[in-house]
Amino acid sequence: MGGTTDTEIAFEQALAAVIGHSAGPDCPPLLAQALLHAVFPGGARIRPKLCLAVATANQCGEPELALAAACAIELLHCASLVHDDLPCFDGADTRRGKPSVHRAFGEPIAVLAGDALIVAGFESIGRGAASVDALARLPALLAIIGRGCGAPMGICAGQAWESEPAVDLVRYHQAKTGSLFVAATSAGAAAAGVNALPWRSLGECIGAAYQVADDIQDAIADPDTLGKPCHQDEALQRPSAVSELGIEGAADSLRKLIEQTMDSIPPCAGREQLQLLVRAQAQTFLPKSLNRRAA
Amino acid sequence: MGGTTDTEIAFEQALAAVIGHSAGPDCPPLLAQALLHAVFPGGARIRPKLCLAVATANQCGEPELALAAACAIELLHCASLVHDDLPCFDGADTRRGKPSVHRAFGEPIAVLAGDALIVAGFESIGRGAASVDALARLPALLAIIGRGCGAPMGICAGQAWESEPAVDLVRYHQAKTGSLFVAATSAGAAAAGVNALPWRSLGECIGAAYQVADDIQDAIADPDTLGKPCHQDEALQRPSAVSELGIEGAADSLRKLIEQTMDSIPPCAGREQLQLLVRAQAQTFLPKSLNRRAA
Repeated sequence: MGGTTDTEIAFEQALAAVIGHSAGPDCPPLLAQALLHAVFPGGARIRPKLCLAVATANQCGEPELALAAACAIELLHCASLVHDDLPCFDGADTRRGKPSVHRAFGEPIAVLAGDALIVAGFESIGRGAASVDALARLPALLAIIGRGCGAPMGICAGQAWESEPAVDLVRYHQAKTGSLFVAATSAGAAAAGVNALPWRSLGECIGAAYQVADDIQDAIADPDTLGKPCHQDEALQRPSAVSELGIEGAADSLRKLIEQTMDSIPPCAGREQLQLLVRAQAQTFLPKSLNRRAA
Repeated sequence: MGGTTDTEIAFEQALAAVIGHSAGPDCPPLLAQALLHAVFPGGARIRPKLCLAVATANQCGEPELALAAACAIELLHCASLVHDDLPCFDGADTRRGKPSVHRAFGEPIAVLAGDALIVAGFESIGRGAASVDALARLPALLAIIGRGCGAPMGICAGQAWESEPAVDLVRYHQAKTGSLFVAATSAGAAAAGVNALPWRSLGECIGAAYQVADDIQDAIADPDTLGKPCHQDEALQRPSAVSELGIEGAADSLRKLIEQTMDSIPPCAGREQLQLLVRAQAQTFLPKSLNRRAA
């Protein structure tokens, strides 16, 4: 993570191939443009990088399957952003420094683009299975990625907690943000053919850290730097780590979560290298203005 | 198809198990209710019955996989209905004689329920693969079902043609309606481990017949009988067989399509039984008031 590595190039190429299929010549032109707009250029691609890093740390012998799983996770993340930006949710006008999909292409195309990205994610997983070993890993991958993005506890469920009269902050964040990080680490392990269960807690820790970092950013950033609207938690009265703990309290919580993340990496062949990657990534979560006490 | 057969009971039980997983105790209550509301009680379940009938006609030795594929197809169909009813598309207040999902649970929950149903469909396919033979059939099933519901030519793409300034009626209907019927017949064949390609044309024919029947119903029915709003094609100036050919012309076209459907069934062990089932189903497409010249 950080810099442009061979893995990152391979990932962007694989993602372009998946979207190239969905947005091919037979696709209605606006939908095709919306699919490209939603996926390229990307954000930090944290989740697919995490998935690939876990696969590599476990000496994955099925690189195509790991890439396919990483693509699925990124596409499901992009789908959730497109739908979360809709007027009936955040009504966000911008995303990654560009107009949001519904602002650029209209609400119907934004709903359909989100749907088509979910479908493309699952299609990607099937296309990644070219060997008997890879076939045997498909059911686990489908279950892991379905669990991370659907109901009862995936990102759809997390977003749906916002429609409930009462919500527990931890449960809400675990579903809305944590679930796809858990899917990323678990899918990396499953693609490598190792038991995915011990890899859940790395995803949980990094997801929790990311959510707190996101809450802090929403509270202190300006929209030009962030590339999307900020102060949304306050405006929409959403539960957040900042509203619960204050800025400094949230920053302390984030520092502790980063240390927990490092400890949560299970034994594996490439543990040291993975720790370096994860620490480098996690440090970027802490805004520079709050960095003075970072480990 | 028609009557309540053992296959139909097994299908409803399998579907209840899939939704029971997604709408389980950890699911946000409104989302859980919306998932149940969107799927039960069902409509005619034409697509999953067709999928299962094709699997049976091909002596499918993996009944769990065929049921899982049939569930996926029905869930993706239900997802498309939930999203099509949204205010930014048809804005339909009713569906299957009940309030539409967004009228009953609000627009955010309707968007998320549709998303979660798509995810549940793909999760279902993975859970159906319990043998080496079934594993080997997963990539074909994922490709077939992805193609039927995503972009460039699935139901998402079909709906997206409505946002384009110009659209070819055949291409529009093939994507919006035909694609999921093609997925149903192809998935039945793929679950049975036979070549799915020859089964596409049965899906194309029955999908085309269903679309013409739907256009006729929209033009001549009243909303109480139909259980959903009618005269929508005219109100929304959507392309339709009735607007192109008139009611009688559309009915003639439907009768020809039913005969083509019968001819399109490929050779297989259970061809005669499948023909009987398909003809019985297709006859229900023709409204009684237009039935005097039906074959």
